Amino acid sequence: MTGRRSSSATTATSGAAAPAARVTIAEIAREAGVSAPTVSKVLNGHDQVAPETRARVEELLQRHNYLRRRARPKKTVGLIDLVIREVDSLWAGEVLQGVQGAAAEHGTEVVVTATHGTTTQTVRWLDNVSKRGSDGIILAVTDLTPAQHKQVNSLDIPLAVVDPVGSLDAGVPTVGATNWQGGMAATQHLLDLGHRRIGILQGLEEALCARARLDGYRAALEGAGIAVDPALQQPGDFYYTTGYSGMRNLLALPKPPTAVFASSDLMALGAYEAIRQAGLRVATDVSIVGFDDVPNAAWASPPLTTVRQPLREMAALAARIVLQGAEAVLPGPTLRMELATHLVVRESTGAAPGVSTN
Amino acid sequence: MTGRRSSSATTATSGAAAPAARVTIAEIAREAGVSAPTVSKVLNGHDQVAPETRARVEELLQRHNYLRRRARPKKTVGLIDLVIREVDSLWAGEVLQGVQGAAAEHGTEVVVTATHGTTTQTVRWLDNVSKRGSDGIILAVTDLTPAQHKQVNSLDIPLAVVDPVGSLDAGVPTVGATNWQGGMAATQHLLDLGHRRIGILQGLEEALCARARLDGYRAALEGAGIAVDPALQQPGDFYYTTGYSGMRNLLALPKPPTAVFASSDLMALGAYEAIRQAGLRVATDVSIVGFDDVPNAAWASPPLTTVRQPLREMAALAARIVLQGAEAVLPGPTLRMELATHLVVRESTGAAPGVSTN
Repeated sequence: MTGRRSSSATTATSGAAAPAARVTIAEIAREAGVSAPTVSKVLNGHDQVAPETRARVEELLQRHNYLRRRARPKKTVGLIDLVIREVDSLWAGEVLQGVQGAAAEHGTEVVVTATHGTTTQTVRWLDNVSKRGSDGIILAVTDLTPAQHKQVNSLDIPLAVVDPVGSLDAGVPTVGATNWQGGMAATQHLLDLGHRRIGILQGLEEALCARARLDGYRAALEGAGIAVDPALQQPGDFYYTTGYSGMRNLLALPKPPTAVFASSDLMALGAYEAIRQAGLRVATDVSIVGFDDVPNAAWASPPLTTVRQPLREMAALAARIVLQGAEAVLPGPTLRMELATHLVVRESTGAAPGVSTN
Repeated sequence: MTGRRSSSATTATSGAAAPAARVTIAEIAREAGVSAPTVSKVLNGHDQVAPETRARVEELLQRHNYLRRRARPKKTVGLIDLVIREVDSLWAGEVLQGVQGAAAEHGTEVVVTATHGTTTQTVRWLDNVSKRGSDGIILAVTDLTPAQHKQVNSLDIPLAVVDPVGSLDAGVPTVGATNWQGGMAATQHLLDLGHRRIGILQGLEEALCARARLDGYRAALEGAGIAVDPALQQPGDFYYTTGYSGMRNLLALPKPPTAVFASSDLMALGAYEAIRQAGLRVATDVSIVGFDDVPNAAWASPPLTTVRQPLREMAALAARIVLQGAEAVLPGPTLRMELATHLVVRESTGAAPGVSTN
């Protein structure tokens, strides 16, 4: 074990003098002439602190050798919490696999809670956590209310977020993927195959990642000198049904697209079925690129060309952040990390009509 | 809360006299002139007890109002354990969803452990369980060694198994599905559509459920007066790849089948791809029936006709068994429960060539 945990263990065994010699946040605050919450903000990489204040506080933290150690050695519980909206998807399976792998490295076990998007479940879970304790909390496609955030903070339990849905408290470490680059790569792949009329099946409107994928799609089109046609943009929610209905809408256009970028693999599967029902064939008649590369993608017929986001690695990183401390895992002072996406070309994409690929 | 838990709670609050008045297994054994393990066997519905011994012991248990209560009120931990081979499948997602739903009803949380088929993980997990305790253990596609079983017993933690892989200790409650009936229904559906040459993609040979599905397939064929052709039986392991290769083998036969029963939805997806690569179409050229009805089935193109096994309900029942006691949940003295499967007809099956379905 490295990082925060082992450093607290070291502190605990380094003799009676050490704890007395340690400086507190309150002392730093007094010396810097700021409030204790301001010192915490600096420690947590929060960006709402004036530069000169930050510099003064950081200088004091360094001089007193504060080193972001825990104020007191914390007893570990042996459990971390994965809180996720639903567990019945391959997306969730990948996240769970990643969290478990990293937890196992630390000899830690994983309590899995599905919120089903209800606050009742979240409240009950937080209640349990405050009783039994937890060594860390990982949120996936779930948000806490500001009050719940405060409660987690007051319990002194490290928190990390996988694939953030919305903008979060700047003090919370998040692990996402390069969604914009992914949307751009997917669209560029279709452009390279000669497609000029390219549609998009959009993900959940309020999800930042969906917005980034859409913007990547637009950037690629604009880079190729193609005007973005609003009729080719179908709203959706990442699920099968909106992929299916969006593709039906696209095929019903006077001039349908020859290629479509689906914002999730599941939406791509819905598009497959709309294409089949229209008596057309994927790749030959309409090229499809997905996003995620959950196992479904390779099991589709034809196997789906898609943008891989490393969900397992993202989830594992979030678990390491809560178990070892963000400063031990994340490079530099950032609390936001985006892992690279990359295009996986399979058989759902082909040359645009009339274009030779030799 | 009902059953075992609430009855122990009642005992705990029913005054000082109650515990002293309770009869122990040892006392029952002495009075019946048998060993204590024999009394336990009767209590657990074990069938290796001579009928007259069972009758004598049951009579004594009833007379002393033993009622299968716990010998001592047990402190609940608030956690149950789901131990599963892998978490990265929709099958696992369904099981997890079922366990979580039932656990939530009891205000209990779920620790999820993936063994990846290794004993290291299982040993480490058992080690953790013996330290932190658990209110119940649910095994899914995972087996414990006899020694590990003994360890769980000595910890006095209730155990239940979802979809048992092999034959288990008769004292352990198991929840499965009517696999034989399901295999029969799948095959009968194809027979009803006029198919006479029907292949099977078999599941994992050592899994009892795979064997039951195969036997159901054979029974339906024999019932229709069709000789079972060994060339039409392809071995497999429930996964995509063996579905794909098995279907390729079937299509390469001098006289390929016009319909195929795949022992899992995932194998059916593999078969879809082999059919596509052969330039054929699912339903029109080759009918396919799957087994499981995980969400993948409805997302296939065309949507897959399949035999639904109620995985969520099976898993929820297993969770209730460990939380409330088998006797409170299972009907009668049985410890083995099979939930009904049923055929879900979608679009992957069609009339045999030359057969009108009007």
